[in-house]
Amino acid sequence: MSSASHLNGAPTRSTDDPLRQVTSGVVRWHGDSSAEATDELVAEEPLELRARAFDDGDGAAREPETIAVIMRTPGQDDELAMGFLLSEGLIARAEEIGALLPGLDADGLPSPNIIEASGAAGVDLGQRMREAGYSRQFAVNASCGVCGKNTVEAACALLPSIPLDGFTVAPTTLYGLPEQLLAQQRVFGATGGLHGAALFDGAGRLIAAREDVGRHNAVDKLVGRALLADETPLSERALLVSGRLSFEIVLKALVARIPILAAVSAPSSLAIDLARAGGVTLVGFLRGEGCNVYTWPERVRS
Amino acid sequence: MSSASHLNGAPTRSTDDPLRQVTSGVVRWHGDSSAEATDELVAEEPLELRARAFDDGDGAAREPETIAVIMRTPGQDDELAMGFLLSEGLIARAEEIGALLPGLDADGLPSPNIIEASGAAGVDLGQRMREAGYSRQFAVNASCGVCGKNTVEAACALLPSIPLDGFTVAPTTLYGLPEQLLAQQRVFGATGGLHGAALFDGAGRLIAAREDVGRHNAVDKLVGRALLADETPLSERALLVSGRLSFEIVLKALVARIPILAAVSAPSSLAIDLARAGGVTLVGFLRGEGCNVYTWPERVRS
Repeated sequence: MSSASHLNGAPTRSTDDPLRQVTSGVVRWHGDSSAEATDELVAEEPLELRARAFDDGDGAAREPETIAVIMRTPGQDDELAMGFLLSEGLIARAEEIGALLPGLDADGLPSPNIIEASGAAGVDLGQRMREAGYSRQFAVNASCGVCGKNTVEAACALLPSIPLDGFTVAPTTLYGLPEQLLAQQRVFGATGGLHGAALFDGAGRLIAAREDVGRHNAVDKLVGRALLADETPLSERALLVSGRLSFEIVLKALVARIPILAAVSAPSSLAIDLARAGGVTLVGFLRGEGCNVYTWPERVRS
Repeated sequence: MSSASHLNGAPTRSTDDPLRQVTSGVVRWHGDSSAEATDELVAEEPLELRARAFDDGDGAAREPETIAVIMRTPGQDDELAMGFLLSEGLIARAEEIGALLPGLDADGLPSPNIIEASGAAGVDLGQRMREAGYSRQFAVNASCGVCGKNTVEAACALLPSIPLDGFTVAPTTLYGLPEQLLAQQRVFGATGGLHGAALFDGAGRLIAAREDVGRHNAVDKLVGRALLADETPLSERALLVSGRLSFEIVLKALVARIPILAAVSAPSSLAIDLARAGGVTLVGFLRGEGCNVYTWPERVRS
C-alpha cells in the first residue's frame, strides 16, 4: 500500500495524530519548601496489535489473534503498527497489509488502543506469526491485562497497594541521591553506555547500585541482590533510576514493595496512574535542590 | 534462600562479578579530520533464563524450559535472574528457588549466558510459567537465535548485509543532525519524557522525526511512516536516535535496510558486532564537532 489512505479504501486513522499529552497535579519541592502545581506529561498507553483472521473462503468466522501489546505514546499508531510488523519480520513491504482498522474492546466497542491488521490478498498474518514463533500467550503476558480494559486496574487486581506506614524521606535527602548513584556508576564513567539504579535507606545511605544496558535489568539486579542477601522486605527503601519513569519500572517497584521511586527525568502518565493506584510515591525531575512528587506526597517530609 | 552461597549448597556464580567491558577499534572524527583509536564499551550479551524440570519423582528425564532471553550487561547474573523471577511474578521470595546453575549450550558445554533455575521443594517453575502465560515460543522469539549459539550469526543468517554502494555522508553533515532532532522534539520540550528518532538524507536534510516513551517505538514509527508514505527503500538514509545504541536498535536499522545509524550516546558491544556483520555504519558519541565511527567508516567521508 502506498499510504494510509490507500489501504484498499479501508478507513484508517490519520498518521498525523499529534502525540497526546496529559496534565497531572504535582507537589513541587524547591529546597525545603513545597507547593502544589500542575505538570504536563507524556501519555503512555498500551497498544494491542492484532492480526485479523485470514479469510480462506470457507465462511467460518474466526477471532483476531494478538500479535503484541506495545507500551507506547499514543499518536501515529498506524506508523507504529507498520514499523513493528516490518521489524518483527511479519511483513517485508507495505503492500502486504490490506488494512489497519480499530479493533473492538471487551465491550464490543472500537478502541483507540487496538489496531487490527489485515493481510492483503494471499497474506496470512496468523500463519506468519506461527512461523515466527509468536503465540497468544506471549502477547497477553507482555501486558498486565487486556488493552480494552483498564491496564492499571488489571495490574492492581493482582497486587495489593503499598500502605502508608510512616516511612518518609526528607526532600533534602532526596536531593543527595543522584550524585551518589553517579559516583557508583563506574562503568558509565568509562563508556557512557549504561543505565543505573540504586537503593537507599530513609537517611539517604546507599545500600547498593547496579548498572546494565537495560534500565529494567538494573532494577531487576538490585531487587535480586536484596533477595539473595536476605534484605527483603524493601518497605523502608527508596529506589532511584537513571532514566525515565515508565509504567514497567513502577510495576517492578510495586512488585518488590518499594514505597518510594525517584528519577532524574520525567514519569509517563501511566507510570503516575499505576503509582497512585499502587501506593508508590513517585518522584520525578530530581535535579539540584528540587523535585516533583507526583503521587503519595505524604512520604516526602522536611 | 539467604544468599547465593546457600543455594542448597549448589555451586553458583558470584554475585560480585564485575560488569564486563570490551574494547573496540573506532575511527574518531574531530571537525574535518579523523584518526583511528580504541574505545571502551559496555558488553551486551543475551542471557537465557531456564526453569529446570520439576522432579515429580517418576524418574523421567525432562528438558529445561526457557523462561526468557534477556539482553543484558554480563555480571551479577544471579541477581538479574532472581529479580526477574520476582518481577515477573514467578516467585514471591528467595526461598522458592533451590539453585541457580549454569546451563548447557547446544554443544553440551556450560555457558556463561545460560542460567537454569531449580524450584525449591514443592515449587514447580514450569507450572508457574504456564499459569503466568509463558510459552516456549515467546522466549525463543524474544531473541534472534539461541543463546548458546552466536546471536549475531543467527540474526545475520536471516538478513543479508547492507552493501557498500557509494552512499556516504560528510562528518560535518552528521554534526548537524542532533540539533535538528532536538528542534523536532516538541513534546520533549514540554515534558522531558520522550525518546526521539529521525531520518535524514545524505545532505543532512530531515525527512521525518518521531517520539515515544519507548525508544524502539520511535524507530518503528519512523520506519512505518516510510512504508505508509511509499518512501522505501531507505538505502540513502541516516537514522539518528536520542538514546543508547543497543543490539535491538541496530537490528531494526538492519531489517529496514538503513545504512547509517547514529546516536549521541554510546553503542553496546553487541550493537557493534551486529552492525559490523550486517553492513551498518554505526556512529556514536555524536556531540558538537565530533563523533566515533565504530563500523564501516567508509560511509563517513569529508
